[in-house]
Amino acid sequence: MAKKVAVVLSGCGFKDGTEITEAVATLISLTQAGAEYKCFAPDQEVVGTDHLTGKPSNSRNLMHEAARICRGEIQSLEELNPQSFDAVVFPGGYGAALNLSTWGKEGSKGSVLPQVERIIREFNNQSKPIGVICIAPTLVAKVLGSKNITLTIGEDRETALEIEKTGARHENCPVADYVTDRENKVISTPAYMYGQARPHEVFQGVQGLVKELVEMA
Amino acid sequence: MAKKVAVVLSGCGFKDGTEITEAVATLISLTQAGAEYKCFAPDQEVVGTDHLTGKPSNSRNLMHEAARICRGEIQSLEELNPQSFDAVVFPGGYGAALNLSTWGKEGSKGSVLPQVERIIREFNNQSKPIGVICIAPTLVAKVLGSKNITLTIGEDRETALEIEKTGARHENCPVADYVTDRENKVISTPAYMYGQARPHEVFQGVQGLVKELVEMA
Repeated sequence: MAKKVAVVLSGCGFKDGTEITEAVATLISLTQAGAEYKCFAPDQEVVGTDHLTGKPSNSRNLMHEAARICRGEIQSLEELNPQSFDAVVFPGGYGAALNLSTWGKEGSKGSVLPQVERIIREFNNQSKPIGVICIAPTLVAKVLGSKNITLTIGEDRETALEIEKTGARHENCPVADYVTDRENKVISTPAYMYGQARPHEVFQGVQGLVKELVEMA
Repeated sequence: MAKKVAVVLSGCGFKDGTEITEAVATLISLTQAGAEYKCFAPDQEVVGTDHLTGKPSNSRNLMHEAARICRGEIQSLEELNPQSFDAVVFPGGYGAALNLSTWGKEGSKGSVLPQVERIIREFNNQSKPIGVICIAPTLVAKVLGSKNITLTIGEDRETALEIEKTGARHENCPVADYVTDRENKVISTPAYMYGQARPHEVFQGVQGLVKELVEMA
């Protein structure tokens, strides 16, 4: 039977939402690995960022914008019941660091959206794998760091040191690869933490993560 | 030396712009094939469509929205000089049928944006390959149909018959495959013309198209 995987999005576009290539690479890799997926995002308004100018733009709803990535098939994050899924993936982008948590502004002292904390704890309690991409490993570090979890955000030393303040252990990793914590079932890949990465390198890292995640589920 | 490929976008999200999976699959496949790319879109405002409700939403600029797909690296379509590129790709989505042309409302009697017509004619005149995905083959049919060009939009009989009114020849094609017109150097793949296609099937079709396009360039 096909494994069921929840994908947590948070807008559409890396400057105020989900990194699009990371999200699409996740969906391609999931069906490639024979899995089924459902997408979720917080039903929440945020100030948008114009992706050409970098300036603030109009208000945007994270779920309605994320619907663009998954062709309209999306539900509110509140409806995500971990009992109904075998695994969960969080793509990156500033959506993860600004909308799903306050890491982008406050680092390890920040907080994680209660719905996101609930989801990470429940998947972990049920021993179901969690995939985290780009800056999203900070979500798992915040929630499960005290378990001495191992993860990667690439080789950005400042972010890695900040992550280790949560109790998590950081391992350097190239863009096209991924890091697996077998005990805690957490898989991470740096993706666009390498800002100059090319799309196929990001795809390769995400594809590896997803293949491992589906096998582990 | 790396082949240079122009990618023409028209917003972000299939209901009022570029189909996101098709666009990302194009960019992944281009760097995978060793090519370089630059993205372009019309600097033009349109009425948006909410991707969750399907209802009209706020006004959106096609170039600023498309910038979300390509991480801010985008130029106005007017700046696309075919002399500087070896090939061009048009991903699909209603952006191609509503913003780059009026095909979505008027079928074969509709018109193509003058900038798009110019680009298709110049690449064709310079014998450089043109890749068209999903509904975007209708752009090439409108501009080059009289050359008895061969292309595919999958197996939608109504659209295929409408395309043949331009003089173009339609060939049925499954989602994961593509059709090549070697004489005119036009390559097409149906992608989300199959509305129920899975992301990896769309990726496979686009990947095949791009590999052929880069080899032919």
